[in-house]
Amino acid sequence: MATLAPARLLDHRADFPGLVTADGAPWHYLDTAATAQKPRAVIDAIARAYGPDYATVHRGVYARSADMTIAYENARSKAARFIGGREEETVFVRGATEGINLVAHSWGMANLKPGDRIMLSQLEHHSNIVPWQLVAERTGAEIDVAPLTEDGRIDLDALASMLTERHKMVALAHVSNVLGSVLDARRAADIAHSVGALLLLDGCQAVPRLPVDVAALDCDFYVYSAHKLYGPTGIGVLWGRAALLEAMPPWQGGGAMIDRVTFARTTFAPPPQRFEAGTPHIAGAVGLAAAIDYVEAIGVEAIHAHECALVAEAQEALAGINAIQVFGPKDSAGILSFAMQGVHPHDIGTILDEANVAIRAGHHCAQPLMDHLGVPATARASFGVYSNSDDVEALVRGLDRVRRIFG
Amino acid sequence: MATLAPARLLDHRADFPGLVTADGAPWHYLDTAATAQKPRAVIDAIARAYGPDYATVHRGVYARSADMTIAYENARSKAARFIGGREEETVFVRGATEGINLVAHSWGMANLKPGDRIMLSQLEHHSNIVPWQLVAERTGAEIDVAPLTEDGRIDLDALASMLTERHKMVALAHVSNVLGSVLDARRAADIAHSVGALLLLDGCQAVPRLPVDVAALDCDFYVYSAHKLYGPTGIGVLWGRAALLEAMPPWQGGGAMIDRVTFARTTFAPPPQRFEAGTPHIAGAVGLAAAIDYVEAIGVEAIHAHECALVAEAQEALAGINAIQVFGPKDSAGILSFAMQGVHPHDIGTILDEANVAIRAGHHCAQPLMDHLGVPATARASFGVYSNSDDVEALVRGLDRVRRIFG
Repeated sequence: MATLAPARLLDHRADFPGLVTADGAPWHYLDTAATAQKPRAVIDAIARAYGPDYATVHRGVYARSADMTIAYENARSKAARFIGGREEETVFVRGATEGINLVAHSWGMANLKPGDRIMLSQLEHHSNIVPWQLVAERTGAEIDVAPLTEDGRIDLDALASMLTERHKMVALAHVSNVLGSVLDARRAADIAHSVGALLLLDGCQAVPRLPVDVAALDCDFYVYSAHKLYGPTGIGVLWGRAALLEAMPPWQGGGAMIDRVTFARTTFAPPPQRFEAGTPHIAGAVGLAAAIDYVEAIGVEAIHAHECALVAEAQEALAGINAIQVFGPKDSAGILSFAMQGVHPHDIGTILDEANVAIRAGHHCAQPLMDHLGVPATARASFGVYSNSDDVEALVRGLDRVRRIFG
Repeated sequence: MATLAPARLLDHRADFPGLVTADGAPWHYLDTAATAQKPRAVIDAIARAYGPDYATVHRGVYARSADMTIAYENARSKAARFIGGREEETVFVRGATEGINLVAHSWGMANLKPGDRIMLSQLEHHSNIVPWQLVAERTGAEIDVAPLTEDGRIDLDALASMLTERHKMVALAHVSNVLGSVLDARRAADIAHSVGALLLLDGCQAVPRLPVDVAALDCDFYVYSAHKLYGPTGIGVLWGRAALLEAMPPWQGGGAMIDRVTFARTTFAPPPQRFEAGTPHIAGAVGLAAAIDYVEAIGVEAIHAHECALVAEAQEALAGINAIQVFGPKDSAGILSFAMQGVHPHDIGTILDEANVAIRAGHHCAQPLMDHLGVPATARASFGVYSNSDDVEALVRGLDRVRRIFG
């Protein structure tokens, strides 16, 4: 992908109160793949939800509680429509991690038996590995691991050749949190369905970066976290096909998910309520709705182009530094992992921090991918709607300094 | 308990931006047992956490992430010390409901077998019934239900006489969310331990209303929700004895809860991290810490005395209205359920709402208790640190109006 002219870049930095240091200097925040900074509109929506609008949902007989219930269910509609889903197929969870755990426990315990197989890939985040290991251990199912292509994508040809009628679930990252590789999700769905398996997509890194339409992708489950989408912590979304959710047993029990409770017999509400036990993260839902409004006003396509332009800029600049190796495909979606010969990524991170550049260094909760890359850790720079060429320049200046210190 | 002079009442109403209507009139919010309004200090702490302080925890190599990690772990210490626990025994969960589900799934699946028994009571919230029903169904354990005394307390004499060596878990509400009845928790612990059973306390309604010390109570697990303690939604606390948590298998898998992940074998972090998969509710933890600071500055003893005084005022006033029946003990902790002859509680709630008085009407997620009381629903007024005699007067005036309308 050619470098886009700076004129193509978005300019929304001023919306984000987190992007200055305590001294008032610009903060070059390049850790958006870990968690995104929040625009003022989201922070204000949350403050209103906890202040003049605050009430519980679903149960109050007074007007403010009815209003908050409307806001909460409106957030569900937005969160559903944002990925092309319907609200009755959309469950609020703590985050993508809980969404995958919910499917692994509820669908997995009801549907997996000894001899069944689950297909993952070598680049999955721990949150899309460990829940399947836990359910495999309990059910006797087994896990297979699709390899990666040379440039760090999930190798769908290899995956297709490994898949059998015994595979009941294929669970893949839509965008890799380490390499930014974008999955051909529609092809993955077709491959999974060809053997009767379901496809779950971990969309954590995709929804802030790519237009997502679960109907067009033809996937069966999709999860994402609000805090990576410029929204609040503690809330995320599990989307699932209505018929699948309908057939799934409850996972957590409590208030709001029941139809009728007696000690002799309890009956459960239909989805999505069946999977939302207890008082929900009300202000989180309101904040997520504000985050989606914010992102939609700019347009995910525009954000995608913006991040691709920054990735291209950074790739070109880093290619000019001798000691640096960049991992992952050229058309990475906003995420760039790299290593510097003879310098541990943590040292890179620490020295960059002194110049107000924040990157992530570590295994990125993807140790099997680190094993594949043959490194214990990488340095990772990741972009968001507020990132700009100054951030890339600050990164490059900082890496020059790292090289001088360790050179 | 005698009515306290108004001078004994606290006056913190001005700290709460939620306590006015859209027209600027006082809002008589009597639904604090459902969820508490938030003081400005909590809202501001959350806004700062999402703004100039925002970063992820545990993983960043840059200073702001290290600072946020300190704030997050500081919140854990506060949440632990607030109930007399230690931080390594304190797990952040979505709320009390998830805390109970975590124990039911993780401890229950590992420790319960066919023939084992779980002791609950007739007044439990659904969140302390359904998780046990789900785990009983899976393990073959069975559930017993302790009856209530005439005035609506858990009958510990009866419970003691029902308990056998086969009982492995006793799970009880520390304070009833419908009746305000306070459990003699220390005695419950002694009774449970006398047969080798564990005691789990649902402390949702207790922590905002009573000083709690898990060491003095000698319980084994304790759960509470931040949003009922003037804190944010989407976060709560599970406290458990170190040795119990240490022996419990992970429940949800994902980032942050692992030691090392390979496809061949995954090892897990020690508690509390073992039970906190995925990016946590960072701003929620910061908000909970601010809520605990707020409550501790006033003093839980003072809040308890304040709410007891308001309950006494309300009991006396309601006793003067012929058609009204009050449920529960005289020394209820801040929660008052009642019925009005010939009027459905929902109608009471709706008419009170017209006078800016917000109560709850319904089964309060305690259908077995409704069955016991012989009603489908009750009206419930519940108090908080911001409640005052004006609220009680507005309630009484409103109930007079209800009586005139239906009379």
